[in-house]
Amino acid sequence: MTVAEEINLDQLGLDHSPLVRSSVLTVDPPNLKDNTGLAERLIQALKETAGLENVKLPLSLARGLKEVLHHSDFKVWAAYQAEGGQGRLIDVRPVSNSDRLYGLAVDIGSTTLSFALVDLEHPGVIGEASSLNPQIEYGEDILTRARFADQPEGLDTLSVVLWQAINEGAAQICAEHKIETGRILAAALAGNTVMTHLLLGLSPSTLIREPYVPVLNRPADLKAIDLGFDIAPLAPVAIMPNKGSYFGGDLVAGLVTAGFNRFEEPCLMVDVGTNAEVVLGQKDWLIGAAGAAGPALEGGVTRMGMVAGPGAIDQVRVERDTGELFYQTMGGLPPRGICGSGLIDLFAELFLSDIIDFRGKLTLDKGHTRRVETDEGPAFVVVPGKEAAGGEPILLSDVEIDILMRSKAAMYTILETILKSVELSFDQIDRFFVAGTFGQYIDPRMAVAVGMLPDIPIQRYVSLGNSALNGLILILFSSQARAEVLDIWRRLTYLELNMNQDFMNRFSAARFIPHTHREFFPSVGTIIK
Amino acid sequence: MTVAEEINLDQLGLDHSPLVRSSVLTVDPPNLKDNTGLAERLIQALKETAGLENVKLPLSLARGLKEVLHHSDFKVWAAYQAEGGQGRLIDVRPVSNSDRLYGLAVDIGSTTLSFALVDLEHPGVIGEASSLNPQIEYGEDILTRARFADQPEGLDTLSVVLWQAINEGAAQICAEHKIETGRILAAALAGNTVMTHLLLGLSPSTLIREPYVPVLNRPADLKAIDLGFDIAPLAPVAIMPNKGSYFGGDLVAGLVTAGFNRFEEPCLMVDVGTNAEVVLGQKDWLIGAAGAAGPALEGGVTRMGMVAGPGAIDQVRVERDTGELFYQTMGGLPPRGICGSGLIDLFAELFLSDIIDFRGKLTLDKGHTRRVETDEGPAFVVVPGKEAAGGEPILLSDVEIDILMRSKAAMYTILETILKSVELSFDQIDRFFVAGTFGQYIDPRMAVAVGMLPDIPIQRYVSLGNSALNGLILILFSSQARAEVLDIWRRLTYLELNMNQDFMNRFSAARFIPHTHREFFPSVGTIIK
Repeated sequence: MTVAEEINLDQLGLDHSPLVRSSVLTVDPPNLKDNTGLAERLIQALKETAGLENVKLPLSLARGLKEVLHHSDFKVWAAYQAEGGQGRLIDVRPVSNSDRLYGLAVDIGSTTLSFALVDLEHPGVIGEASSLNPQIEYGEDILTRARFADQPEGLDTLSVVLWQAINEGAAQICAEHKIETGRILAAALAGNTVMTHLLLGLSPSTLIREPYVPVLNRPADLKAIDLGFDIAPLAPVAIMPNKGSYFGGDLVAGLVTAGFNRFEEPCLMVDVGTNAEVVLGQKDWLIGAAGAAGPALEGGVTRMGMVAGPGAIDQVRVERDTGELFYQTMGGLPPRGICGSGLIDLFAELFLSDIIDFRGKLTLDKGHTRRVETDEGPAFVVVPGKEAAGGEPILLSDVEIDILMRSKAAMYTILETILKSVELSFDQIDRFFVAGTFGQYIDPRMAVAVGMLPDIPIQRYVSLGNSALNGLILILFSSQARAEVLDIWRRLTYLELNMNQDFMNRFSAARFIPHTHREFFPSVGTIIK
Repeated sequence: MTVAEEINLDQLGLDHSPLVRSSVLTVDPPNLKDNTGLAERLIQALKETAGLENVKLPLSLARGLKEVLHHSDFKVWAAYQAEGGQGRLIDVRPVSNSDRLYGLAVDIGSTTLSFALVDLEHPGVIGEASSLNPQIEYGEDILTRARFADQPEGLDTLSVVLWQAINEGAAQICAEHKIETGRILAAALAGNTVMTHLLLGLSPSTLIREPYVPVLNRPADLKAIDLGFDIAPLAPVAIMPNKGSYFGGDLVAGLVTAGFNRFEEPCLMVDVGTNAEVVLGQKDWLIGAAGAAGPALEGGVTRMGMVAGPGAIDQVRVERDTGELFYQTMGGLPPRGICGSGLIDLFAELFLSDIIDFRGKLTLDKGHTRRVETDEGPAFVVVPGKEAAGGEPILLSDVEIDILMRSKAAMYTILETILKSVELSFDQIDRFFVAGTFGQYIDPRMAVAVGMLPDIPIQRYVSLGNSALNGLILILFSSQARAEVLDIWRRLTYLELNMNQDFMNRFSAARFIPHTHREFFPSVGTIIK
């Protein structure tokens, strides 16, 4: 058993009212004068102890009840869900020393599954872990997987491998902390809309065909046993609701982390993955939008791109005068490639050092040690072959720069468009949350320098880390967070991005570094350069 | 498809609000401007059509929803449960001609399983059927079976054979009426407390050991799939609550049939099986009691006794002057034995013809054609060997008469005791309901004649037939009947019969025909004789 990293819910303005609670109950032993059943005695004890009006006891618990009561001398530990006076028993055991109440949060990324094991009663994170989403074998991107799911057996295959990986992840994190998986009595899961469908065994086929609607937006009342989730069979499993095909439950969980429900002033949140997902709003209104923006930033497009991990270049600096390049790799290992945040760093530094110009073209002359010619034209040598892990140089070609230019332009245009929809300007944005792994490692100054993110005071940028996972943890701990999920889901309006002339004009203007309208980015070249 | 035998709920003072309802729903088809999920569209359509605040859609229905909506052009037939503004979907199909809503009532007797297939929307019984309870192989009586369940694998064995028989019965009655079992969308079951435990897979071991309490009195929220019941998997299965170990859900259902909730004046209900189960009460209070009384009447004790069925003598008349005996058998077949009601008839007729005296002794002289000598002493020849199906004479011996005397005395004493507990006398009883197969065939005048039932005006006796099955049918049809179940269960006080000196004195006084105090039975020998 590990001491948890405490979470101060008070500080976050949240109550402590976990999804599942526990009580030690003294059950009135039966006697000849009172024919009340054992189950009803247990129910009565819980009603009194927890102040509940109604308590449901699932049949599977009733089946083992006699043994539990007789072995415990009628003093039991009970785990239960309670809401509005209504309770449901989830586990009953003889009282023991190891009666802690565990919860599990799982963020189902299309690339990575992230797990957090939490102590529900003493709010804190006991441990975190992550593993790869094994569906990658059936399709790198979400669209390919959704199409695969449409083939015979495809849906089953993708659901089964996903649940296997989730169950393995749960088993591993439990083993690491020496607890039984059956001791996990609550779980919260989130993913994008396709992942949510696959989790639930729902075909994603309607998501990828006009008119692109989900089968189900708001899953409710799920128990582990319904899903084949190998934790306590009666454990409630909260799966975050989607808002349409492009706005997944992971974003909803992210909004809980950001605390949008508490802000008077408008805020922005971006989550950069395969899509750029953007939410604008405050406590009374929320607008969401999503668009293709980020493939270059996920390690899938550029040849040297890779997922953030050991050997990935995650920071780059270029000496303005000499053009000398310094980089840092994750784990300090020889470089194997460059991850999203490293790419933004590199891109910005090359621009600020005049190695690429405002159109994104390499300025180095032929013959420069940092320039090589490739089939795709000239390329910048980020790491010479002799320094790189694979022996091959790590290059950034003109073509790849162009992809980056389009990505960052798309991101900026989406942000501009969503603000324009409510006639706000960037300087009115109070906080700008950057979510996801990308947000965790990116230096917002660099993203501003290349014109990907707007030029607002840098302290307004807030990195949320794995905002989905963090939101799920809060949801396990607090009924206020759970209520926020529904609030957010109900209030959120999804803005369909219309690729009209106006949008395209704005997109074209954003395809320069930092922007055609240099005046939008006053700090670039002054503060940073 | 068969036309149902209509049930007039109005006449019974009950509303028509079946456990499951259906609606044809026109679902709003998805479009590019509205990312509402298919599930939420269906939920919305049902909310509007049925005026519900909240609707739950189980995951298994969501999984098939896309196909159903696409094959039906968004016009579907939906079956759902609704209570207090809360709905739960149970089935969704494309609209078709065969959309009727079926329910199944099953009375789980320890000897016989009785089935009634009903049309929930046009209240009526489509068909009835019965089969043997296969548990008999593991024990004739309930106590033996409860002990068997306590052995390794015993509980599983008894539960499995019971559910097999229920599923076979359901399949047969459906086949007979040419409907799929999956079209049964609601069920109601009742049995005594041991049977209810075995139905639920609960060990009955606590029922047979001090302090004799059930594991569970009030099952709730069960679906067919939870129980391995092969009807529509999401069909709600209402299992009647027990009140302690000796007062089963079958009696609760019987009380609904009798309509105890509507009477101002005190009424009695008896159900004679292995135990005599008695309820006294009216709309505001109910007292239940049970005691060993009836084995002689169930065909298990007397050598010629048999369960009511083909070849069973069910009526007997004796010519007062000549002593000539006339009998009637079920199905008009050669007699194989005598069932409970026949036995009471025989007993009464022999007394009224002075063939047995008030002590229960045979008065026929040795050598009389109707008298033979056996190992157990003299016996009365009910049917000579040459008339009987088996070739052997059907006899009633002194010993068997003695058992009958004790049975009827026990029944009368229990009735006296329960009345005494609230200081009522028999003439204050407004209606006297006689339940069960026994009650269906018995002639109350005969039961009065032998002093088994009290001598009240004969028109106050009401036969309820299979009161448990009939109650279950009402429960399927009417929310008022369902509310009555809970009312009854809450109000009912179980009276522990204390075998004290007072009880024993009353019992001894009742071991004469009709009674030591002949004045208690003024009509015997006047009206009947």
